[in-house]
Amino acid sequence: MSALQETLELLGTRRTESLAELLEFASIPSVSAQSQYAPDMLRAASWLEVRLRRCPGLTVERWPTAGHPAVYAEWLGAAGAPTILIYGHYDVQPPEPLDRWTTLPFAPTVIGDRVYGRGVSDDKGPLLIAVQSIDACLSATGQLPVNVKLLFEGEEEVGSQHLPALVASQAERLRADFVLSADGGMWSATTPSLTVSARGLAALEFTVRGPAKDLHSGRHGGSLQNPLHAISALVAGLHDAAGRVTVEGFYDGVTELPAEERAALGRLPFSDAEYLAQTGAPEVFGEAGFGTLERQWNRPTLELNGLWGGYTGEGGKTVLPSEAHAKVTCRLVPGQVPERIPGLIEAHLRRHLPPGVTLEVRHTEHGASAYHLPAEHPGRLVAREVLAEVYGTPPLEVGMGGSIPVLETFKEVLGIDTVFFSFAVGDEDIHAPNEFFRVARIAEGQQAWARYLARLAAPRPTDSQPAGPQSTNLQPTDRSGSRS
Amino acid sequence: MSALQETLELLGTRRTESLAELLEFASIPSVSAQSQYAPDMLRAASWLEVRLRRCPGLTVERWPTAGHPAVYAEWLGAAGAPTILIYGHYDVQPPEPLDRWTTLPFAPTVIGDRVYGRGVSDDKGPLLIAVQSIDACLSATGQLPVNVKLLFEGEEEVGSQHLPALVASQAERLRADFVLSADGGMWSATTPSLTVSARGLAALEFTVRGPAKDLHSGRHGGSLQNPLHAISALVAGLHDAAGRVTVEGFYDGVTELPAEERAALGRLPFSDAEYLAQTGAPEVFGEAGFGTLERQWNRPTLELNGLWGGYTGEGGKTVLPSEAHAKVTCRLVPGQVPERIPGLIEAHLRRHLPPGVTLEVRHTEHGASAYHLPAEHPGRLVAREVLAEVYGTPPLEVGMGGSIPVLETFKEVLGIDTVFFSFAVGDEDIHAPNEFFRVARIAEGQQAWARYLARLAAPRPTDSQPAGPQSTNLQPTDRSGSRS
Repeated sequence: MSALQETLELLGTRRTESLAELLEFASIPSVSAQSQYAPDMLRAASWLEVRLRRCPGLTVERWPTAGHPAVYAEWLGAAGAPTILIYGHYDVQPPEPLDRWTTLPFAPTVIGDRVYGRGVSDDKGPLLIAVQSIDACLSATGQLPVNVKLLFEGEEEVGSQHLPALVASQAERLRADFVLSADGGMWSATTPSLTVSARGLAALEFTVRGPAKDLHSGRHGGSLQNPLHAISALVAGLHDAAGRVTVEGFYDGVTELPAEERAALGRLPFSDAEYLAQTGAPEVFGEAGFGTLERQWNRPTLELNGLWGGYTGEGGKTVLPSEAHAKVTCRLVPGQVPERIPGLIEAHLRRHLPPGVTLEVRHTEHGASAYHLPAEHPGRLVAREVLAEVYGTPPLEVGMGGSIPVLETFKEVLGIDTVFFSFAVGDEDIHAPNEFFRVARIAEGQQAWARYLARLAAPRPTDSQPAGPQSTNLQPTDRSGSRS
Repeated sequence: MSALQETLELLGTRRTESLAELLEFASIPSVSAQSQYAPDMLRAASWLEVRLRRCPGLTVERWPTAGHPAVYAEWLGAAGAPTILIYGHYDVQPPEPLDRWTTLPFAPTVIGDRVYGRGVSDDKGPLLIAVQSIDACLSATGQLPVNVKLLFEGEEEVGSQHLPALVASQAERLRADFVLSADGGMWSATTPSLTVSARGLAALEFTVRGPAKDLHSGRHGGSLQNPLHAISALVAGLHDAAGRVTVEGFYDGVTELPAEERAALGRLPFSDAEYLAQTGAPEVFGEAGFGTLERQWNRPTLELNGLWGGYTGEGGKTVLPSEAHAKVTCRLVPGQVPERIPGLIEAHLRRHLPPGVTLEVRHTEHGASAYHLPAEHPGRLVAREVLAEVYGTPPLEVGMGGSIPVLETFKEVLGIDTVFFSFAVGDEDIHAPNEFFRVARIAEGQQAWARYLARLAAPRPTDSQPAGPQSTNLQPTDRSGSRS
């Protein structure tokens, strides 16, 4: 029996245990954005350390940062073999709005073939799959086919603020051939896919202030600017009627998708009707002149994530509020510079500020460049082969509307690329109530990870493309020449 | 010693007790808008009943409604004398935002010459002044100069929804010559004023819905309408750049102020600079072509009281929210029909609904017509005289930007007018954090109420105007012919 077969067999005997571990891990409310969860963040880091220490031969360390700590582990016994840096995060999104959850967000619950809970899909399930595969291989065979370094951070959901400094200070320890990311997501539960690009990110918040305190809207209404009116005018002015962002300079550097790539997008198994059925939205809407997938993957956006002011409780309150607030994030494409975007938006807001209010803008240091993985990257080729093997069908190669700021860090500080290898699916309500993960993906993911490590170690025939992978060539990757 | 002098002397000995009663009353969080305070609403009603029963000879009853109960009391021993219906309310506004209070909203606190707490100015302080004056007169003299009926409701801050039905069902019991309202507010703490008009009110709430659930703004952003963008466009479209409401039909029936009344407004002791210093707003803003007082008293408004959607907590959350919400109230002037306004706004919103979202509008049954008190109303003349006596200077006659829906009920169901006789001042942060009431106004108000009852009973010389009251003739009252 080969080492791979031994690993796969051991994983097979550990199915129940694998799921139980996820339930335990996801019951820790490791919400990085909200300070009241700080003790739970430490609890989650400790849980992860303890889990990693159970992998025979793995060295485990906690790496403090100015924010939440990272957890690091390594096994470097495969002399001459490649070294991969496995990335994931143990922090999760805030659970709000709580009243929209069917189960408790931090009491993970199996219902049918799904497990529900905050973080099960993003990213605790996919992260554990990687750990469990490595554990099985070490336990079954006493070694791994390649060298691995594992870096799990606790600030992905708040922009990985302190990771660049950490990676820079540990650059020597983290040296690897490429990053294999347990964070990310597949196209669908039935068709394997390989994500080869991600949009970048820029963020800011702003506050509009009128009177120094909340006033009675009967007495004062009509004689002072209402900050809710002013902020609505500002927000409404950020897009034109055709859905295009009106911020001056926002599209600088953005190029149109070549005709053949746009055509390839059109051949993907995607329909607006199905998308609307999935999301429950009444119709698709976005920048005029582009299809839905192109809008999601290849066009930049400016989205309000939160907007609030005045009385939002039960019943009425006749108030003319003192302040109104907005949270904004932009998704960026190649050619856009994340650091420039908040300044452009701020300038636009100041130029269009209605009379009678003042504006405060906070740049929230939460940026990332758009990313793409070179087409012939060896880690990408292995991923294609493994997915074709596990699922019996070649993976689609797709873009990702979201962002993983850390990708930029790995590229800039360590000079290495990142291959997404997550077994989350894009419909699993991450960042929303009732987040779930498909139980069957645990076994599929473990099998894929075990095969990935084995295949990466094996000598590869040169010039041999794996049989049949459907390469749509639709990513920014493939037009890096024209798009920076 | 006259009956009035005996009453005033007794009030003088009860100063500390009077303040202590307000502290006790205002410590009950009788928030009518929020269901968790329902037990406190009953506690406040009971407290008020017990207080009224301590007035010798007063008959006290609790009058249930489909919502919060009203408290009723009467003394009808002055055969042949006028009968007045004293109105006030024991419910208060919600205390939010809690973090803006310097003291606890329901732990009323005396600091210097002010008492701070939710409801002390609106309307528990002014209400208690009336009760304490009547108690003193009954205690000192065994009788009152006029017949009094007291009606204190518990739903003023939620639009007095059930009061019309109650007043209609008790119309016989409530029969009176006019209403003397302990609710309302004076122009300033130094110059007495008499409020002779109030704006009307219309309210609605609306929700904009996009996807069926919150989505990840990275994955989905740019391909679906964001409800926060859509609601901002709707809200921004409710006013034009000149501050005029754009809703079709909104201004139907509204007439311009005659030139001489506008000139009278200009002669009132009011300056924009002082107003800005009081409110802390950077500049005045409103419908172009009108001054600040005219905008507050004589022009209709459409104001957002609340606007919210998406993530509003600490840190970031990259969400494309499912819903966005708005609360709206309008202030109305003579000529506008409150029942028509929400429908006009809904039609406007539906006409201008952006693509990709649906709209739900809730009409919240919270309307009132604009009101004005006839210039020669006897209750108004007595009020002028008494205020001139107590303050040594004739009162200004002013308008009121706010609304008291119950005024319309009294006019329509009982056919009687309402005289405002409150000792609250307009700067006391009602409906806002750090609401306060001036301690000295308790004694002033008690003296005024005692004098009012005495003077109303006294035979009045015909055709005698009280010496010197400054009648500005600026209210809708005085142009009822032209404005319905």
